[in-house]
Amino acid sequence: MAITRFSVAPLWQQTRTLADVASGRAPADLVITGARMLSTYSERILPEREIWLSGGRIAAVKPAGAHSAGPAPKAVYDARGGIIAPGLVDPHIHIESSMVTACAYAEAALLNGTTTIFCDSHEIGNVMDVAGVEAMLEDARLAPLSIFLTVPSTVPATSPELETAGGDLTPEKIGAIFDKWPEAAALGEKMDFVPVAMGDPRAHAIIAEALKRGRPVSGHIYGREFVAPYAAAGVTDTHEAIDRDISEDFAEAGIWVFLRGGNPATPWNSIVEAIKPITELGVSHKRFCVCTDDRDADDLLAFGLDWVVREAIRCGVSPEKAWSMGSLHGATRFGMSEEIGGLGGGRRADLVLLDDELKPRNTWYGGELMVEDRRVTPVLEETLEQRYRYPSAAYNTVHLPRNPKLIPDLPTEPVTVNAIGIEMPGIVLPHRKVAIEPANDWAAILDQHRLTFVSVIERHGRSGTVANGLLQDFGLTSGAVASSVGHDSHNIIVAGTNEADMALALQAIEEASGGIVVVRDGKVAAFVGLPVAGLMSDKRVHEVAAENQALKEAWQAAGCTIPYMGFNLIPLSVIPEIRITDMGLVKVPEMTLVPLYD
Amino acid sequence: MAITRFSVAPLWQQTRTLADVASGRAPADLVITGARMLSTYSERILPEREIWLSGGRIAAVKPAGAHSAGPAPKAVYDARGGIIAPGLVDPHIHIESSMVTACAYAEAALLNGTTTIFCDSHEIGNVMDVAGVEAMLEDARLAPLSIFLTVPSTVPATSPELETAGGDLTPEKIGAIFDKWPEAAALGEKMDFVPVAMGDPRAHAIIAEALKRGRPVSGHIYGREFVAPYAAAGVTDTHEAIDRDISEDFAEAGIWVFLRGGNPATPWNSIVEAIKPITELGVSHKRFCVCTDDRDADDLLAFGLDWVVREAIRCGVSPEKAWSMGSLHGATRFGMSEEIGGLGGGRRADLVLLDDELKPRNTWYGGELMVEDRRVTPVLEETLEQRYRYPSAAYNTVHLPRNPKLIPDLPTEPVTVNAIGIEMPGIVLPHRKVAIEPANDWAAILDQHRLTFVSVIERHGRSGTVANGLLQDFGLTSGAVASSVGHDSHNIIVAGTNEADMALALQAIEEASGGIVVVRDGKVAAFVGLPVAGLMSDKRVHEVAAENQALKEAWQAAGCTIPYMGFNLIPLSVIPEIRITDMGLVKVPEMTLVPLYD
Repeated sequence: MAITRFSVAPLWQQTRTLADVASGRAPADLVITGARMLSTYSERILPEREIWLSGGRIAAVKPAGAHSAGPAPKAVYDARGGIIAPGLVDPHIHIESSMVTACAYAEAALLNGTTTIFCDSHEIGNVMDVAGVEAMLEDARLAPLSIFLTVPSTVPATSPELETAGGDLTPEKIGAIFDKWPEAAALGEKMDFVPVAMGDPRAHAIIAEALKRGRPVSGHIYGREFVAPYAAAGVTDTHEAIDRDISEDFAEAGIWVFLRGGNPATPWNSIVEAIKPITELGVSHKRFCVCTDDRDADDLLAFGLDWVVREAIRCGVSPEKAWSMGSLHGATRFGMSEEIGGLGGGRRADLVLLDDELKPRNTWYGGELMVEDRRVTPVLEETLEQRYRYPSAAYNTVHLPRNPKLIPDLPTEPVTVNAIGIEMPGIVLPHRKVAIEPANDWAAILDQHRLTFVSVIERHGRSGTVANGLLQDFGLTSGAVASSVGHDSHNIIVAGTNEADMALALQAIEEASGGIVVVRDGKVAAFVGLPVAGLMSDKRVHEVAAENQALKEAWQAAGCTIPYMGFNLIPLSVIPEIRITDMGLVKVPEMTLVPLYD
Repeated sequence: MAITRFSVAPLWQQTRTLADVASGRAPADLVITGARMLSTYSERILPEREIWLSGGRIAAVKPAGAHSAGPAPKAVYDARGGIIAPGLVDPHIHIESSMVTACAYAEAALLNGTTTIFCDSHEIGNVMDVAGVEAMLEDARLAPLSIFLTVPSTVPATSPELETAGGDLTPEKIGAIFDKWPEAAALGEKMDFVPVAMGDPRAHAIIAEALKRGRPVSGHIYGREFVAPYAAAGVTDTHEAIDRDISEDFAEAGIWVFLRGGNPATPWNSIVEAIKPITELGVSHKRFCVCTDDRDADDLLAFGLDWVVREAIRCGVSPEKAWSMGSLHGATRFGMSEEIGGLGGGRRADLVLLDDELKPRNTWYGGELMVEDRRVTPVLEETLEQRYRYPSAAYNTVHLPRNPKLIPDLPTEPVTVNAIGIEMPGIVLPHRKVAIEPANDWAAILDQHRLTFVSVIERHGRSGTVANGLLQDFGLTSGAVASSVGHDSHNIIVAGTNEADMALALQAIEEASGGIVVVRDGKVAAFVGLPVAGLMSDKRVHEVAAENQALKEAWQAAGCTIPYMGFNLIPLSVIPEIRITDMGLVKVPEMTLVPLYD
């Protein structure tokens, strides 16, 4: 038996049965007794309760032991004093970042007490256009997790003059996705915040497709000056609150704030600052949620949404409020608080059993026990065996030009290089002007100026364009690294100290139809295969997490000064100051191409 | 120029202009400056702000004076240090109770700072079926107020065996209303809570019509034992929290609690008890709203939703939270927080200017100043001149049998009367067994046993049935009183000390096609004409309020021990213990007919 979102019948088909069970006229399918209840409605923990389930839904919460007065339930589960809480609701994530499919993602989510996610599949949209978004929706429908879509809104991230993308999601295509897929709950993060603020017609036409259908619009904004025009344009949430002041601005502009938490070793743990309006300025928490946004495969397991909830508590919010920000608030933001996010009658029985530190021990999804004592149950195992299989087109998205030129021409006279500076945390990349003298070969130049070759090779089989550049302070000591995840167009990015290792890295990715690779001494030292759209593995999450761990170790051993996730962002030509796409070096925010040599 | 809800274009048509204004590239239509802002998002009052409007919407909130740095706004309004807050949102009201039409209701609402209401037109539904509901929806569309419908769910209140109603809203009819009218935002209060809890098929079929369309279901529940099955049946709000314990039960069951406030001289001011989970038990206020439910014409002006907000403050909630419970929370409950309920960008410019006691001074509706210094502006005057005119069928709903028998037969032997006891507050009516001896005429009997004649006359032109009964302790000293508002079927109820005055009262109602009347000494002493469906006047609210005041004075002078609103409830055969309909005396909750004489 495979469990999906559709294993639970709609409430309107079940109201009579549920009223019978709640009234004690019919037996519950399951009673979980001997528990405390974390109420996200009242924000209290209630002692000595039990919860009655029927048809995968909550019939009622009662005093512990109440079931003994009525018809015998079909099953009773002793919670041994643990805390029952609603499953977590993640209001903003990208499945592709986790390097696994939606079905595989579900395993990690359930282990972490998450039962609903709102995913923005804009990576696969950039590779495969509508077909990719729809394949992921099919994937989502087979997952043992409630997965709703926030429709990718900004594909491509920039324009065909600046990069070659595999997708072009026009207003018409976006409207059609809304009309075809009921799980399309909102418009995904409108990343082009400058064009939106400036009144760009296409950006606003895309927003209109959502608003005219009564669907909310998610945002992605940096810079306090953009908050007012963004709100005026209809954007009503953001996960990019990176400090206290902008977080307060968002709240006051009527924008839901999704506090993003994650591995503190990455730049994504912005919750620590963004939560301060609540903890320092007396702002109500009622329109704040927590979210994960991006997680790679191994961080996904260690830093789930439950971890973010606990981080909110560490920052000074009460456990009851923090769990509510992780469940009911996201449900409310998307108009689903009558279905999920709390332990009210009629809701889906998406439940977690927590210990006193709010660490999930068990997870029930639609009334089915999927995780018990932090282990996958046989029902979940069986469901995971029947994961969605992406169509063959998704396994065939890496189409490279033959023998691409991977390193720049050796300069024959003194030149100034427009180099891409590499600095932690690896988001903003400074534009470095590096004066170099001619030499007999590259080795001495690279060494003297702390440079590394970098190239981006178009992989959608469209233009076959290739651009060559130079990184400064990337730190790679020998060999090459490459990735088919090169935000947002996901052309192949390869960096190396020599052309042969770069070619080998590229070959490894081409042969596997996608992946991330470290090559050293003429051999593949580590590899994560991402054959689905060049973005995702089709394996289980623990396998991919292990591969990814090995990759990270090899990456670090190779001397790279930024993690591979930062490397994947080098082609993202919407973040300052200089990036490289398949079309060349792009200056941001000027949005102009510059040559490698001035 | 008449202002309606549609005077403001949808947000999706305005995002570019609003982004231009918010960015300072285009002038605002209006800047209201020199104000404090009550933020329902953060629950704080922010000093020295101004608000920029464009196209009837909020472009941005800025520091006071900020507009002087950009393009000159078309108009500037000096708020002189007052508090700007979002207009109030009333999540549950019945327009008919106010004895005026929707257009006329709007005047009182705007004077009280209310800009959106969710009305349940189940009184006119009981009289005119779908045609009545739809006429009121047409009325609502012409009103200078945002009026959404919670579709009447329980028409008739009981069954054709117990009373003759003018309406029968089947599941099919209710589904059709949802499909035809986008402003049908929810299912109205499902009053038959016992059948719902017991699994009655029709009750659940009606709930299903709402749920399957993703529309929420409003409830009406007395009795803690019904809370669980009601929640399990999909009900997610109630305004019938009458004490602390049931209010807490509702909150924990995931049911939004609408705290009902009103004239403390009536039984409707239940907020004082129902708010205690917040003020005494530490329950979060985030899923609590305030509402008015029923208001007659004069109380409507004196006890608006703003008064209820202030009552919440008096009970111990902070002003910022209380105003939020009166605006944003209702908007959130109905999924409209992106359009109303706060001062965020893109929202409708439904604004009030408050003094320090949170008393509304000005009201802007869709950016138009409708009330200034507590007076109706010329724009609102003009709009009110163009009120909706109900169709002629609505003026023709009182069809009485010829010469109905208005008093019982004089007993010719000793009998025990099943009398209806009258006690304040006039909700529950005790069943009194009164032993009477034969006499030559009624006068001595009435006098000896403190009895008054009462009759209910079918008025829908269907059955022509009439039932006679006796009230005990009604107190009427002479003459008669009568009403065409006789909940919920709205047959005519008349009470009197003699048949002639009763006939005169009935005649007055028949001639006016509806009304409430006091007859004394063979003359009409006071009369409020309610020609629209026998429920509403077509006059302006102040005129009806004045008529109603005069009626109340005459009513009291006549000795009646309960107010006319309680009298109108005597036929409501869902409240214990004994009621009278056109079919006879009804025992509640047994739901059986009993004879007048045992």
